[in-house]
Amino acid sequence: MVQPGLAEEFRDKRVLITGGLGFIGANLARELAAAGAEITLVDSLVPEYGGSLFNIAGIDDAVRVNISDVRDEHSLRFLVQGQDVLFNLAGQTSHVDSMRDPYTDLEINCRSQLSILEACRHQNPKAKIVFASTRQIYGRPQRLPVDEQHPIAPVDVNGINKTAGEWYHLLYGEVYGLAVSILRLTNTYGPRMRVKDARQTFLGYWLKQLLNDEELLVFGDGLQRRDFTYVDDAVSAFLLVGANEEANGSVYNLGDRKPISLLELAELLIELNGSGSYRVVPFPPDRKVIDIGDFYADFTRIEDELGWRPQTELREGLANTLEYYREHGPRYWDE
Amino acid sequence: MVQPGLAEEFRDKRVLITGGLGFIGANLARELAAAGAEITLVDSLVPEYGGSLFNIAGIDDAVRVNISDVRDEHSLRFLVQGQDVLFNLAGQTSHVDSMRDPYTDLEINCRSQLSILEACRHQNPKAKIVFASTRQIYGRPQRLPVDEQHPIAPVDVNGINKTAGEWYHLLYGEVYGLAVSILRLTNTYGPRMRVKDARQTFLGYWLKQLLNDEELLVFGDGLQRRDFTYVDDAVSAFLLVGANEEANGSVYNLGDRKPISLLELAELLIELNGSGSYRVVPFPPDRKVIDIGDFYADFTRIEDELGWRPQTELREGLANTLEYYREHGPRYWDE
Repeated sequence: MVQPGLAEEFRDKRVLITGGLGFIGANLARELAAAGAEITLVDSLVPEYGGSLFNIAGIDDAVRVNISDVRDEHSLRFLVQGQDVLFNLAGQTSHVDSMRDPYTDLEINCRSQLSILEACRHQNPKAKIVFASTRQIYGRPQRLPVDEQHPIAPVDVNGINKTAGEWYHLLYGEVYGLAVSILRLTNTYGPRMRVKDARQTFLGYWLKQLLNDEELLVFGDGLQRRDFTYVDDAVSAFLLVGANEEANGSVYNLGDRKPISLLELAELLIELNGSGSYRVVPFPPDRKVIDIGDFYADFTRIEDELGWRPQTELREGLANTLEYYREHGPRYWDE
Repeated sequence: MVQPGLAEEFRDKRVLITGGLGFIGANLARELAAAGAEITLVDSLVPEYGGSLFNIAGIDDAVRVNISDVRDEHSLRFLVQGQDVLFNLAGQTSHVDSMRDPYTDLEINCRSQLSILEACRHQNPKAKIVFASTRQIYGRPQRLPVDEQHPIAPVDVNGINKTAGEWYHLLYGEVYGLAVSILRLTNTYGPRMRVKDARQTFLGYWLKQLLNDEELLVFGDGLQRRDFTYVDDAVSAFLLVGANEEANGSVYNLGDRKPISLLELAELLIELNGSGSYRVVPFPPDRKVIDIGDFYADFTRIEDELGWRPQTELREGLANTLEYYREHGPRYWDE
């Protein structure tokens, strides 16, 4: 559940969400729609990126959908005008894709971010901007849990470009006075996540495999530990940061206090599903070279400053997610 | 003087220099030409960037000049083929320009670097690549002198994009096995530097002003301390790193043991010139926001590993440079 009351701050506020038909964007939009915000969703509906009109089923009438790509600087220059808040979530998020096609990743995660910021600077310098960054920019942890002071040392093209995208935001805050906040997300999961293939997250793909009676593949030795954020908790963080001026200029990790190994995660999923099996296999070479090993984040900063902490236990979040895909799965993997 | 013997390693080697008609590129080319390397110089001759055919006067017959822009991925894909060494020096280096036109900086310092690396990876994976990075990526020093472990925290678009460019190089070394080394240059100066305006370095512009009996402007309080590298010493570093396999995968600072304040530098220049004057004025706003204060680098790593250290005292280097521009200045500021 999203923390009650947070979205109330946005009643009658004009809110633009890039990547608004995607996983986190659509969940955020649902919460804002319920609270009576004036919402515009920008999405390119690039099939591999996870945006889908089904993600906003039921709130269709409460949002304005604008199909355009963040690489289209002209449409964005118009769309940012008059907005109170910009939740900037559009991105290319596949690490493996970024290695195969570094240019597309660059265009979306760097150039488009520059053009969105230039648009805000010139057209709407008062807007609050919340940028969705990623734990991937830390690279292989030098210490655990990873706090915001940890060195930035990305291990793939996506991580490098997301770093640049984040830093442009902070720079435009510093130099031009834009009200910018950054959330560095760790593995976010929940209803409406992309599950069609393992392009973005292995967890989404596991859900699909499990519900289709396929064996899960666990790469490496399965002992890598990761932390997961249920999407409602991520949405709470976006709302908190978006409404708080004290968050301007700040970077916050999200995370979870209880990291879990991939083996344990596979076992938990199978238990919750009531059936299923997994197999431990060596890493495919293209994933091995960019794997970061154990990762879990220290989220003390956002807890101390804004009172955010994860509310949904992994077991409960996974159960909700399985239930969602048991009901709606074919809308995500057949279309 | 460039350290004797270093260029001998490149006799009959095929060497490609991007930005080869620019300041450092042309000085490097002169040394390699004298040693009998087979040299191709790639340069776009964009007027604001400092490349000039005059920079290779006297070695015209010993080098192949190919006018093309690193943004032209097709020409680069062809040109990297068969090269033994690539000195990758082409870049947009003006901090102020990067804030006014962030897209051009992105195209040159990020996208073109990706396409050069993709070209090497596919067409010539055995080539040694030396990338010219910059101290600007460290941002405002958290401690002095700044060693290679210092956090990366750039304060302008150019610094962010150069960081990405450097990291792509390291990533392609790590993931695809390319033989990559990085030099993080501090203020390099000497004959053939760009002196027409203060777009790239204030020092070059001071030289022009001094020789044209104009008053030098010192920004701020003039107490900011910086370190300077004479171009021959920078060329020595490129040759050393380019010839040494032990340097593969490594990042090295250049620097000088004796940082100098801008006031002292202005006074030294006026003394060496025999005349001149300066005035201390407040920072222009667009420079103030991206100024980094004191900066000088720790170059222990390259000293310990490869034996590099600056050979030319600032006084001697500045005298040589003044002499060069006293003779050739109009070729640099009138054309």
